[in-house]
Amino acid sequence: MKISIVGLGVIGGSFAEALKTAGYEDVYGIDNDQATLDTAVEMGIIKAGYIDGKDILPETDLTIMALYPKTAVRFTQANHDYFKTGAILMDTTGIKEKFIADMAEVVPDNIEVVYTHPMAGRENRGIAYAQGSVFQGANFLLIPTDMNNEDSLVFIEDLANELGFGKINRVSAAFHDQMISFTSQLPHAIAISLMNSDHEKRETGKFTGDSYPELTRIAKINEDLWSELFIDNKKYLLQSIKDFENQLDLVKKAIRDEDSDTLKTLFIKSTTNRLKLEEQMDKRKIKRK
Amino acid sequence: MKISIVGLGVIGGSFAEALKTAGYEDVYGIDNDQATLDTAVEMGIIKAGYIDGKDILPETDLTIMALYPKTAVRFTQANHDYFKTGAILMDTTGIKEKFIADMAEVVPDNIEVVYTHPMAGRENRGIAYAQGSVFQGANFLLIPTDMNNEDSLVFIEDLANELGFGKINRVSAAFHDQMISFTSQLPHAIAISLMNSDHEKRETGKFTGDSYPELTRIAKINEDLWSELFIDNKKYLLQSIKDFENQLDLVKKAIRDEDSDTLKTLFIKSTTNRLKLEEQMDKRKIKRK
Repeated sequence: MKISIVGLGVIGGSFAEALKTAGYEDVYGIDNDQATLDTAVEMGIIKAGYIDGKDILPETDLTIMALYPKTAVRFTQANHDYFKTGAILMDTTGIKEKFIADMAEVVPDNIEVVYTHPMAGRENRGIAYAQGSVFQGANFLLIPTDMNNEDSLVFIEDLANELGFGKINRVSAAFHDQMISFTSQLPHAIAISLMNSDHEKRETGKFTGDSYPELTRIAKINEDLWSELFIDNKKYLLQSIKDFENQLDLVKKAIRDEDSDTLKTLFIKSTTNRLKLEEQMDKRKIKRK
Repeated sequence: MKISIVGLGVIGGSFAEALKTAGYEDVYGIDNDQATLDTAVEMGIIKAGYIDGKDILPETDLTIMALYPKTAVRFTQANHDYFKTGAILMDTTGIKEKFIADMAEVVPDNIEVVYTHPMAGRENRGIAYAQGSVFQGANFLLIPTDMNNEDSLVFIEDLANELGFGKINRVSAAFHDQMISFTSQLPHAIAISLMNSDHEKRETGKFTGDSYPELTRIAKINEDLWSELFIDNKKYLLQSIKDFENQLDLVKKAIRDEDSDTLKTLFIKSTTNRLKLEEQMDKRKIKRK
């Protein structure tokens, strides 16, 4: 089986590494940057690299597309005529409803797209930060569509398992986008706003314990990718921000009223919820072993 | 020099450990929980433990008070007559303006209080989570008052240095409280609100990468301590929340307007600010070595 990875950034590069570790050798890269392709070849994680999809797609059985949503649509459209009949095109973008609709316009009839979301993004970009190990125990979401064959879905699930992902779950595009707006995009919106609300010229680093650095790690953000993700998931993200603001309003009101009992109730609730989450995460780690 | 630590929780216990590591042997504990005192003696981090301050304070040269603000005031008041003349009472609470005013009412004339904030809190409570190593490279803030002698301030700064703290800085109570409302309390208010805005019964753990777990670690919170800190720092905390909300409003508006350029500008700003913070933190680490 020939596998091609499109986009050798932090995610694509990590797939290349994880595939290598899992024993896959017939792996190729497609990227618009020759230096990145050269690096990937030197690292030994791809056999050869191509600027042009048409030079390798006609022989490729599985294409893993690790591109930003709009770029992924453009790539699929531009290579419409070059995919091998019966091939699987695996998507890895972080939004689904709008993206699946956009893709439906450009996908050729002779291939099958499997929509997935490997939840292992990083705040750094580029192949230098690629690491196959980031997938170990990570969540992997699979979003079936009416166009999918069960065999293809199972094939991708097996591959995800082989590459070390922890929980592998099938969900609808709508539920995916709703959950991701809460667990991924909202935290990013918060981290950015927290970081940007610092006053200029304060030496904030002198006044922090762990909290502020931890809550702002993801304020270092890839602006091209995330502006797309935010806008394409507008409906759910605005709702998640609203839900968050409602909770923050409760905290604010309790502070303003010096209402210690309400604050304690909110803190006990958040503690309980956090412990539940930790339990879910621990189970994941246990499963991993 | 005899040192007594009041309150052998996560902070007091960590001081006991750090003092032991630094070679201090004449260290005692005061706590209202006999089991905690027994544990500390078994761990070898205190020589002996006392429920009652009056049994050891008359011989104590340095008292490190690791209590919640209100409890610290009560402890000082209750032991008004037992402090050794010329002793130093070191405070470690997370708020200062209101606390210093409250303390002024109860501190006996024959001792000197040095107000500090060792920035090494933990989301877990109790001696079981005490670790002297949490102070390594951590920020240590010292808040001089009109009552302080320079010698006493330098004495505490030297001690902080010896215990492994990184940056040691003197600041005013007002600036301390303003900065802490931003770097510590606001992140906690955010983490709590994020955690509490999850919908009931969703298996959120299946849908997370690193962001959500990271931004909610501190949603596991000591409700007694933090309700005090939030309310006692009301003025600055409400302002910091407001500043944060203003920034979040900019993100929201840009999403609503599908204004990709504004989003990118906000993301680039947060990235730049974060890199600045990392540079400050790296310098701290370098200094530590």
